[in-house]
Amino acid sequence: MSQPSTRVTRLPEKQSTSRDALYELLGSTPMATVALIRDHHPVVFPTGFARVDDWLVIHGSTGSPWMRALSGGVHAAVSVTALDGVMVARSGFESSFLYRSACLFGTFERIAEAEKVEYLDKLTDSFIPGRVAELRESTCKELAATLALRLAITDANWSLKVSDGFPEDPEEDIAAGAWAGVVPLTTVYGEPQRAPDCDASIPTPDSVLGMANRPL
Amino acid sequence: MSQPSTRVTRLPEKQSTSRDALYELLGSTPMATVALIRDHHPVVFPTGFARVDDWLVIHGSTGSPWMRALSGGVHAAVSVTALDGVMVARSGFESSFLYRSACLFGTFERIAEAEKVEYLDKLTDSFIPGRVAELRESTCKELAATLALRLAITDANWSLKVSDGFPEDPEEDIAAGAWAGVVPLTTVYGEPQRAPDCDASIPTPDSVLGMANRPL
Repeated sequence: MSQPSTRVTRLPEKQSTSRDALYELLGSTPMATVALIRDHHPVVFPTGFARVDDWLVIHGSTGSPWMRALSGGVHAAVSVTALDGVMVARSGFESSFLYRSACLFGTFERIAEAEKVEYLDKLTDSFIPGRVAELRESTCKELAATLALRLAITDANWSLKVSDGFPEDPEEDIAAGAWAGVVPLTTVYGEPQRAPDCDASIPTPDSVLGMANRPL
Repeated sequence: MSQPSTRVTRLPEKQSTSRDALYELLGSTPMATVALIRDHHPVVFPTGFARVDDWLVIHGSTGSPWMRALSGGVHAAVSVTALDGVMVARSGFESSFLYRSACLFGTFERIAEAEKVEYLDKLTDSFIPGRVAELRESTCKELAATLALRLAITDANWSLKVSDGFPEDPEEDIAAGAWAGVVPLTTVYGEPQRAPDCDASIPTPDSVLGMANRPL
């Protein structure tokens, strides 16, 4: 078998095959969870990621054992999930979450040195929009210490499951008169906090002002 | 090897061995990501969870292939992560995230029928505090369709990595005068939305009012 099935087994009506919907999810959170096999055991690592064109891009230290394992071409599974709310049904059984959840399968490849600066800058600007233009360039030493990896997003290596809407309670529960609905969840940036070693005369940059008190 | 190493390799100074800190993290989000091996490939599933005493508890359909695999005792790795903010440093290299990230290893065991109601109620009340008292009891059919699993939290099967504080930029970057700091991230409940099939005369219950417009 070349990769695990991308068919959603449970609640298959929630499966979406829309790449636009996948990319919207990938653009709505910077955090992925990467699973791989080491010494016959599953291991799992949360990490920042960005989508760049049809690639899912991550980076880390050249000294990171799990990044090195991925770089060596081991099979990986990547989960990206947005928790959008709580579905409050008229029974515990029907209660659940509102979510969008993607899983991608495949092997990562190492991004070539010639392209590394471009990809790392895209990661930085994905995490902190506009920040690259405010920063000095990366040094050769920093670049040498950084491993950048990418996973192709093909037509056939991902699944997307979306739970939205409202509870679907059976007639007898509706008739019994309990409340039902949803409580949305949103992740928001708060007020920026200046580092203790950052002089008060240095103005807060546009990149940081752009995040402040906005939704993720 | 009985389980993967729980020693943090990269940035080991961020490793915490505090069980209180672990439990605080497990109490701060309802979402875990579970990795296991199927057909020699890693697969990964996000799912709601709750900590009950020294157990990490999940549930799902008895028809769920991955839940059934876990129930059969395969090795699992569970990631629970809170993204607490963005660390805005004076270089792309030093910029990162504020986070708390736990990984737990082991095998899940099936919760016995005699204890299932108690555990499922604890899951419901963990996701929607106070909801169980407002609901009818689960039916035999619902209980029969639900698989509840638990993973022991021992002294030796988990790691916790915490990134907090402020950027630690080198002297020359501080002297160059770029801004540095953090932008916190918080996940908040919004305004409850009544289901279209829920009569307007039914009052919003205390459980839902208790979540509304509060942090997760």
